Amino acid sequence: MAESPESILKKLGIELPAVATPAANYVPSVRAGNLLFVSGQVSIWAGGRFIGKLGHDLTVEQGQQAARVCAINILANLNGSLGGLDKVRRIVKLVGFVNCTPDFNDPHKVVNGCSDLLTEVLGDRGRHARSAVGMASLPLGAAVEAEAIVEVG
Amino acid sequence: MAESPESILKKLGIELPAVATPAANYVPSVRAGNLLFVSGQVSIWAGGRFIGKLGHDLTVEQGQQAARVCAINILANLNGSLGGLDKVRRIVKLVGFVNCTPDFNDPHKVVNGCSDLLTEVLGDRGRHARSAVGMASLPLGAAVEAEAIVEVG
Amino acid sequence: MAESPESILKKLGIELPAVATPAANYVPSVRAGNLLFVSGQVSIWAGGRFIGKLGHDLTVEQGQQAARVCAINILANLNGSLGGLDKVRRIVKLVGFVNCTPDFNDPHKVVNGCSDLLTEVLGDRGRHARSAVGMASLPLGAAVEAEAIVEVG
Repeated sequence: MAESPESILKKLGIELPAVATPAANYVPSVRAGNLLFVSGQVSIWAGGRFIGKLGHDLTVEQGQQAARVCAINILANLNGSLGGLDKVRRIVKLVGFVNCTPDFNDPHKVVNGCSDLLTEVLGDRGRHARSAVGMASLPLGAAVEAEAIVEVG
Repeated sequence: MAESPESILKKLGIELPAVATPAANYVPSVRAGNLLFVSGQVSIWAGGRFIGKLGHDLTVEQGQQAARVCAINILANLNGSLGGLDKVRRIVKLVGFVNCTPDFNDPHKVVNGCSDLLTEVLGDRGRHARSAVGMASLPLGAAVEAEAIVEVG
Repeated sequence: MAESPESILKKLGIELPAVATPAANYVPSVRAGNLLFVSGQVSIWAGGRFIGKLGHDLTVEQGQQAARVCAINILANLNGSLGGLDKVRRIVKLVGFVNCTPDFNDPHKVVNGCSDLLTEVLGDRGRHARSAVGMASLPLGAAVEAEAIVEVG
């Protein structure tokens, strides 16, 4: 039997944060049929704030850590709205938005930090279709933002 | 009984425009199952053209007005393709694209202008998951563009 | 009877490439119910590499050729995952990301290159909802990236 996502997170030393209700007229996620649409999650959490631009303020490795925080926030969101990660049937689609300079050509390498954690925690259920793109800016100056579409059981 | 979206729009003094067929090989919206995918709507309508960059040409408040125009165009699109806003079961997902300078860190505040009107007109059915991001540019120099995924009855 | 997509591609002199497995923790496409989510496809293929920024390195016409390559890669992806383009019921949604300078106001004209080929090859089944936006950068410096949501039979 595969190891549980919760057990893997524990081994990685990651405690999923509680999901705050946004301070505006939107919500963390909305379900329609078997699809759950997760709001864009920025690279800020209790464990650290990744702020700034790839190509200027952060290295690719730091960007990958930022993208990993987006994955943690997505997992926290799924855990909160579904009541457990076992309800995730598949991470279907990810868009990784990378805050960067116009000459930064590696947004895909940065977004790997998000894809890798989702796959490490959820196994093949975490393997998704995705787009990785470079942005002029992001909310709060975050280095990375990622949104997800998830199939639920 | 809740007030109708049409009645709320009337009180707000908003008359939904007719939806023009795009002058290219795409369409205003496509339905697949219970989901309606609405094309990106820019901040231009009969009531005004919001052109330019946040962080340079427009204040956050002006940006919110621009995002509100995107919401009007989304509602017009829904009204046109569904034959009435009562067919909207839920605004599921919104992406708000904000045309801005690289140091503008408030795209989420701008997109609130879109989220607020959708929620004001549709109530809880208008409350959505969303992403807000900062763009290098947008079609016609528009200040804001927003696309939506909508669950229909 | 309508001409087959394969026959149209042949007349256009387009041979769809084989789809490579991404060298990272994501996949070319994921199906959930009747929707297939296709990963972002950049403007690079065996027939040419479209690199650089609209508004600086490439003309609108060259950008349209780049967007056309994204359409070829989307079609190749669909062909590979579905085992034939007859399984496509409808291209539902397209997002066209254009790598450009901050003063480039024609991302929609560029993305037409993608929309046009999809519609030429698939007819009315290729006519989609879409967004076209301008990006600070894209993976590998690609001029255009496009992702698609497709309804399958």
